Amino acid sequence: MLVPARAVSELGDVDLETFRVEGRRLVDWIARYLEGAERLPVVPRVRPGEIRSGLPAAPPPHAEPLETILADVERQIVPGLTHWNHPGFFAYFANSSTAPAILGEMLAAAFNANAMLWKTAPAATELEMVVLDWLRQMTGLPEGFFGVIQDTASAATLVGLAAAREAVPGLDARRRGLVGQARLRMYASEEAHSSVEKAGIVLGIGQEGLRKIPADAEFRMDPRALARAVAEDRAAGWTPFAVTATVGTTSSTSVDPVTEIAEVCARERLWLHVDAAYAGSAAVVPELRWLLRGCERADSLVMNPHKWLFVPVDLSAFYTRRPEVVKAAFSLVPEYLRTAEESVAPNLMDYGVSLGRRFRALKLWMVIRAFGAAGLAARIREHVRLAQVFRSWVEADPDFEVVAPSPLSVVCFRFRGRGRSPADADRANQKILDSVNYSGEAYLSHTRLGDRTVLRLAIGNVRTEERHVARAWELLREAARPL
Amino acid sequence: MLVPARAVSELGDVDLETFRVEGRRLVDWIARYLEGAERLPVVPRVRPGEIRSGLPAAPPPHAEPLETILADVERQIVPGLTHWNHPGFFAYFANSSTAPAILGEMLAAAFNANAMLWKTAPAATELEMVVLDWLRQMTGLPEGFFGVIQDTASAATLVGLAAAREAVPGLDARRRGLVGQARLRMYASEEAHSSVEKAGIVLGIGQEGLRKIPADAEFRMDPRALARAVAEDRAAGWTPFAVTATVGTTSSTSVDPVTEIAEVCARERLWLHVDAAYAGSAAVVPELRWLLRGCERADSLVMNPHKWLFVPVDLSAFYTRRPEVVKAAFSLVPEYLRTAEESVAPNLMDYGVSLGRRFRALKLWMVIRAFGAAGLAARIREHVRLAQVFRSWVEADPDFEVVAPSPLSVVCFRFRGRGRSPADADRANQKILDSVNYSGEAYLSHTRLGDRTVLRLAIGNVRTEERHVARAWELLREAARPL
Repeated sequence: MLVPARAVSELGDVDLETFRVEGRRLVDWIARYLEGAERLPVVPRVRPGEIRSGLPAAPPPHAEPLETILADVERQIVPGLTHWNHPGFFAYFANSSTAPAILGEMLAAAFNANAMLWKTAPAATELEMVVLDWLRQMTGLPEGFFGVIQDTASAATLVGLAAAREAVPGLDARRRGLVGQARLRMYASEEAHSSVEKAGIVLGIGQEGLRKIPADAEFRMDPRALARAVAEDRAAGWTPFAVTATVGTTSSTSVDPVTEIAEVCARERLWLHVDAAYAGSAAVVPELRWLLRGCERADSLVMNPHKWLFVPVDLSAFYTRRPEVVKAAFSLVPEYLRTAEESVAPNLMDYGVSLGRRFRALKLWMVIRAFGAAGLAARIREHVRLAQVFRSWVEADPDFEVVAPSPLSVVCFRFRGRGRSPADADRANQKILDSVNYSGEAYLSHTRLGDRTVLRLAIGNVRTEERHVARAWELLREAARPL
Repeated sequence: MLVPARAVSELGDVDLETFRVEGRRLVDWIARYLEGAERLPVVPRVRPGEIRSGLPAAPPPHAEPLETILADVERQIVPGLTHWNHPGFFAYFANSSTAPAILGEMLAAAFNANAMLWKTAPAATELEMVVLDWLRQMTGLPEGFFGVIQDTASAATLVGLAAAREAVPGLDARRRGLVGQARLRMYASEEAHSSVEKAGIVLGIGQEGLRKIPADAEFRMDPRALARAVAEDRAAGWTPFAVTATVGTTSSTSVDPVTEIAEVCARERLWLHVDAAYAGSAAVVPELRWLLRGCERADSLVMNPHKWLFVPVDLSAFYTRRPEVVKAAFSLVPEYLRTAEESVAPNLMDYGVSLGRRFRALKLWMVIRAFGAAGLAARIREHVRLAQVFRSWVEADPDFEVVAPSPLSVVCFRFRGRGRSPADADRANQKILDSVNYSGEAYLSHTRLGDRTVLRLAIGNVRTEERHVARAWELLREAARPL
């Protein structure tokens, strides 16, 4: 059963010569996979349960060679994956894994450094501080923002709003909880991400504790409606405490007027959290730096390098001007985690839900260095250009219409379906979407805007070229032709 | 500035030939690093800020070659890391990165599959279900437990307790929040992990909403004290709703009497969450399966393969018998994430805080296959044996004493410091700890038990052999000699 130098010895790790051989082979395989990703179907034609039924229902009792396992990855896993690396991936927010990040993740796994305390990973803790400060500089945020990595924007928004709750004077939610306290209310536009609502649920504020503010015709929060809502709520006995502004909404990438929202927050003493998960990265492009205008006044802000800064999931950058409040909301240091350094070096576990923290900074550091600030800007600029090119094609076609501004790399559009009822036109758009996605050459997703089904083309993959966008447009028009 | 085939082209990824060359070289480097980890100091002798001051304060404007970046990892990062791979790492819960997991993480980064929806990663979603079911079988949990991966046990405990809150009849915390509602209270032993208290803070229950139940002389929750506390709280107007039992506490790895606690929970209709983050993995050893006795009645349970099942951080396995409640607590599906498959295939984003979910199942699948169930059991059995050997040495030494049972791979002990005051003896133990850790050959951490400073030797690294444990004991005795 145990084959020396091929499988494992009875104790210890897999022998390292096998690791070397299989690791080198895997590097080559990954290079071929990335090169050939566009020849795979973006979305696999598998039925729910199909992959699972091909895998053993019980765990293997004995060791199997790495070679066999890796062959099974190719045979059993790859055919069942949606290929986010495919240059025709235009769904949700398209994103990228890149060579330096892949090596960075392998290294992080090898080090297995847990950056919970400074002492348990000094270099990981300090590299995290350095690289988040680089990103701050690259996006034009002022000094005074403290950065810490969270896994996802959902977690980061939870952290920001937990801090906002902690900052409510006289509440002491940390100790006393919310029962018997003031009725808290927070605000976000009706276009804000579901993670804001989810944070409200988790924090015990409830869905009723989130008031959704109407958006204008371009899907941006109306700051006057916000001010009115806050005044109404105060009069009705609520305690307003936080506003989440969105820079780059998920549906249409609209940008809330953060400067005006910050004014309301300052006047009303509300915590301002900014969800710049998608669009924040674009501020590395000098001419797009306007995106974060007003954000210098945010109490907390999140942007996701794993969305549009060429690192694989997960890596969300959380910034706050009030780290002491975040720490007050989260820090619990049991005796077994006390260290002599805690007064002089940050223990990053104090700034979020999780205690264990993997070495995520490494991949971002490697990506920023491998591409350089100018190289990152060039890639994002190209994505925006490709989206504008696509938009111009849609605008020129009488059968289609663009339905929202496209300030960045996402275009929202629809098949007009002239002469059809709204519901019927919606069905036609869904049909077009299904047909394009079934082709395996492109993958788009949909949303609803103005209560109509809308198609989204989102550009964000580093391997996407103009020809891939053109092919998607061709597929869309072909799918619309019979309708 | 741009060197072809060495740095990057102006757009796209780093060229893949460079990736191949540097990737192979990095695999070799990692093999050498793992082989030689014991020649590095476990804890680096760096001062806070020292690593940071050696790194550029500003991001690089232009691309740098991968080769340079990887050379800097060796030059600037490695000397500042605490080496969790060192076989003399005995602090906290020692854990392991292993060859199959390192390759699994590289692959997961390359695929960059986001398992938020079934559709966005069918194979990742289904492999996650398969591999968590394997782990369920290996640890002897009955069918009917639904498994989903969270990043850390802290997040998993938050999810379990959020579900518990959702399950309180008539509360509807999701919609209404907690203000004006019944005063919720939950229970855990005074030895429970800080993540239980943190979950209470986050959920709006507050520190006052957690009542800590006294532990017995062996640091286990006293179920009669629990029953009394619940009765008292009900009489005082509280609404008890959840109990967290711990299987393997962080300080001493004590195991709460889950069967008796489950009785109380059944009688009082309380959600039973089990924190088996460390010790759950040990149930893969047939003769240690008793650890999870009673856990078949848990409503939710967490165990961390990244603690003692040879995968690097992060991978926490969350199980629940009531997935519909977890989903009711967390699911929010905005229009742009609706898919045709959602009624027949699980979308794993519905079972936790985060929307984005990386392909964590891959590394666990590869580790279980590369070692086999029997191989995993053999390694854990050896760790327990090594701990018992160490314990016997401490017991035989009149200058030291064992201060808690050692059912698993952690030994809590102390230098007696005969003739000293308790505070002075505590200082002597701290001195011994500092001295051993300064050696660079071993790294232990401390805790407090019975209000005394206690040293912990935790075995969990796959590379730890008896000679490493013997060396740690030698260092401890040497450090104690002058005292």
